[in-house]
Amino acid sequence: MTDPRFFRSHGPFTVAELAAMTGAELVGAGDPGLAITDLAPLDTAGPTQVAFLENRRYLSGFRSCRAGACLVAPEFVPQAPEGMALLVTPRPRRNFARIGQAFFPPEPAAPGVHPAAVVDPAAELGDSVSIGPGAVVAAGARIGARSEIGPNVVIGEAVEIGEATRIGAGASVSHALIGARVHIYPGVRIGQPGFGFEMDADGPFMVPQLGRVIVEDDVEIGANTTIDRGSGPDTVIGRGTMIDNLVQIGHNVVVGRGCIIVAQVGISGSTRLGNRVVLAGQVGVAGHLEIGDGVQIAAKSGVNRSVPAGVAVGGAPAVPIREFRRQIAAIKRLGRRSEGDT
Amino acid sequence: MTDPRFFRSHGPFTVAELAAMTGAELVGAGDPGLAITDLAPLDTAGPTQVAFLENRRYLSGFRSCRAGACLVAPEFVPQAPEGMALLVTPRPRRNFARIGQAFFPPEPAAPGVHPAAVVDPAAELGDSVSIGPGAVVAAGARIGARSEIGPNVVIGEAVEIGEATRIGAGASVSHALIGARVHIYPGVRIGQPGFGFEMDADGPFMVPQLGRVIVEDDVEIGANTTIDRGSGPDTVIGRGTMIDNLVQIGHNVVVGRGCIIVAQVGISGSTRLGNRVVLAGQVGVAGHLEIGDGVQIAAKSGVNRSVPAGVAVGGAPAVPIREFRRQIAAIKRLGRRSEGDT
Amino acid sequence: MTDPRFFRSHGPFTVAELAAMTGAELVGAGDPGLAITDLAPLDTAGPTQVAFLENRRYLSGFRSCRAGACLVAPEFVPQAPEGMALLVTPRPRRNFARIGQAFFPPEPAAPGVHPAAVVDPAAELGDSVSIGPGAVVAAGARIGARSEIGPNVVIGEAVEIGEATRIGAGASVSHALIGARVHIYPGVRIGQPGFGFEMDADGPFMVPQLGRVIVEDDVEIGANTTIDRGSGPDTVIGRGTMIDNLVQIGHNVVVGRGCIIVAQVGISGSTRLGNRVVLAGQVGVAGHLEIGDGVQIAAKSGVNRSVPAGVAVGGAPAVPIREFRRQIAAIKRLGRRSEGDT
Repeated sequence: MTDPRFFRSHGPFTVAELAAMTGAELVGAGDPGLAITDLAPLDTAGPTQVAFLENRRYLSGFRSCRAGACLVAPEFVPQAPEGMALLVTPRPRRNFARIGQAFFPPEPAAPGVHPAAVVDPAAELGDSVSIGPGAVVAAGARIGARSEIGPNVVIGEAVEIGEATRIGAGASVSHALIGARVHIYPGVRIGQPGFGFEMDADGPFMVPQLGRVIVEDDVEIGANTTIDRGSGPDTVIGRGTMIDNLVQIGHNVVVGRGCIIVAQVGISGSTRLGNRVVLAGQVGVAGHLEIGDGVQIAAKSGVNRSVPAGVAVGGAPAVPIREFRRQIAAIKRLGRRSEGDT
Repeated sequence: MTDPRFFRSHGPFTVAELAAMTGAELVGAGDPGLAITDLAPLDTAGPTQVAFLENRRYLSGFRSCRAGACLVAPEFVPQAPEGMALLVTPRPRRNFARIGQAFFPPEPAAPGVHPAAVVDPAAELGDSVSIGPGAVVAAGARIGARSEIGPNVVIGEAVEIGEATRIGAGASVSHALIGARVHIYPGVRIGQPGFGFEMDADGPFMVPQLGRVIVEDDVEIGANTTIDRGSGPDTVIGRGTMIDNLVQIGHNVVVGRGCIIVAQVGISGSTRLGNRVVLAGQVGVAGHLEIGDGVQIAAKSGVNRSVPAGVAVGGAPAVPIREFRRQIAAIKRLGRRSEGDT
Repeated sequence: MTDPRFFRSHGPFTVAELAAMTGAELVGAGDPGLAITDLAPLDTAGPTQVAFLENRRYLSGFRSCRAGACLVAPEFVPQAPEGMALLVTPRPRRNFARIGQAFFPPEPAAPGVHPAAVVDPAAELGDSVSIGPGAVVAAGARIGARSEIGPNVVIGEAVEIGEATRIGAGASVSHALIGARVHIYPGVRIGQPGFGFEMDADGPFMVPQLGRVIVEDDVEIGANTTIDRGSGPDTVIGRGTMIDNLVQIGHNVVVGRGCIIVAQVGISGSTRLGNRVVLAGQVGVAGHLEIGDGVQIAAKSGVNRSVPAGVAVGGAPAVPIREFRRQIAAIKRLGRRSEGDT
């Protein structure tokens, strides 16, 4: 059961209401007026809860399921237990998420500036902005309407933040323009100087970091992730991109729209990602590369060359994914072949 | 010498007292009443310090050692320098740690709520709780007796924390139930939403993250580590597990008891670890896997299949450790064999 | 154009002044008295901006460049567009950085203790120290002249910080002696206990962590990086070393002078690095190793043996770099050779 201490229910909803909000077809002997109070997995759901079945693997659990209602793909309807209200849809999982959202939408923080926050008089706050205790907002910063600045967050001078953006506890943002509906998780670091040295024949030298970070609308940035500001050009995160925890994004990196960047990925300076690029966990990408639209990079890969649009790669150094799979197969054979040797 | 600015000594202890607290047998010509004031390594220890010798490698240092007392394995006793008080034990290193603990136990923070903390009136604080300056404790949170909430820590609504748990500077905890004697290091992030999207044939969609984080008793969580809350099920860290710095633990992950998770490991969503699992540094584990009791995973490995109990694996993708060693040997041969080629 | 909301210009400077500050020779038809207001890349620079050309690759952009002035290597002078003031130097890029520094030097924070900071009366602050809002400075801490402690930073008891050191938002430092002109980025964690357990035949046991962190002068430490204190010996970062974001440095590690440690590197306990060692991104180094002066380690490598001075290594496990390149070439051949097989 969803823990009511942490999540306040906006339910119950009747089975008919759930059908309406998901576009599912209501079939079976169940009562359309039945009040559903919560969501639960197939194996624990009870008579006032809704579950879902999308994958054939869980069919046996479905047959003995005690849920009052179940989102179910059409092909499994004949296997339903008696009396269950069936919400038939080709996308049970997606609609289960939609019902979860209806029951437990994110709760807005109380608007207003907490007395223990420190907001410079020269900062501008939009309507219904929430500034948590211990948060610091510097001069010239502009926070859009309905945005939430969490406890102990630090917003630097002249930073702009769009509407309905949320910033989690203890994060810090400087030298940045942040869009609307962005979600920045706790401990994120945005806008600090990049690893700003270059080399020439006389050795390393420091380069002033005079650019910014631009985060477009609807971006998610996971906990303790770091995004350095540009050195002159900007570091850019495109609209709708989702970044997981503990990711490193170097200066001047440009990430396109709708990308997915999984935990502990590192992207070195001045590399450009197209749109809808997927980087799986712990991938490393060298600097000054071009990664095309729709590129997919397998977990733990090390990318040291540009990758054309639409290509999937893997390995360190990364190669096309089919070649990578053959490498793995060959190495496995080597590991077995020499079995007699040791 | 242990720096008295940072560590307050509870000594001195006599050699006889050290023998009593470790169960070591006191032999040699040394004075049991000698006051020992500090611990030191073999090579720098002086006449009022205690050292230890466990490893044959350091025998020559032992012979010329000037320590007043030394914890020593029985087989090395004949090599001791004259006049040294010998504390004979089969586990010198472990008992050296025990003596260190007696000299320099962790100092409890001053109990009470610092005037610069922000504690909601609807939070409950146990006896002798310490809340540091700038800490924020939300409504409904419950902090167990003798627990310490460090400076600028943020504790979210309804979070429960057991007794004698310590949380370091700037950490944040939400949507979580934390046990007793847990040690959370600075900058840790617990309870933020997981990387909550799934894919179906229509593309990615967001899944509400409606679970919690459960941290059982006696867990250690290293600096800047991130532990996401579950999506419906909970994320669980079992009793006595030790997690190093900069580790990522995804939503719905279940970690068993007594596991050791070294720095920069990443564990993807819904994977389950048994008890006493050891993950060495920078390991990545894919999602939805089962890692059995006592599994050991070599540093930098990438695990993309479940691993049965008791098996040691290595490599990316990980294979049984002996097979991994043969792979390495074969690759090394390849690197040498083709030496003439280039 | 450099965004004036985030970077305040100390210019303009005349072309003659730029020549003087860089030692470049002023040639061409340009006006030495021309006021330059900003820096820009070759392709966007306008008539009051300065650009640079060092790499032949950008020659065509240079020929059509509209910059008022340009730092340029001698060999490219004949290709300059008409009317451009040429600042001729063998190191255009380095001097471009120097001009950037002159236009936009780091702005010192306002000196003084912010009223929302919490500074223990038994802390000592040097002249012109700046303590930001929400910062906490404990008893016995000593902060050198002109140092800047950012918002919500936590400085533990007895910590010493040299002159002109800057600590970014939300960082925490305990059990440490920090030098002068050190730059600690937001979210850094210094001085927490190391991953302090050891193993013997009876299993794991905890070791008290009784050492410190010593950070020498002129060190840079990137955002959300973690540096554990020593267990008895100290953890040491040598003068002039540059550490990127999300790096893990274990207890008792000694890093020499002038090292470069790129993002997401992990160095395990008690390993020693010489001077001028370069660790590329996501490298892992096992514990108790010796890495000699000038060693270079390729990105993503896993180092499990000591490396003698001056050697470049790569791979996991790391081998000499030429051997690593042959391994890669051999594996690539395997991936292709078996193409017919699958």
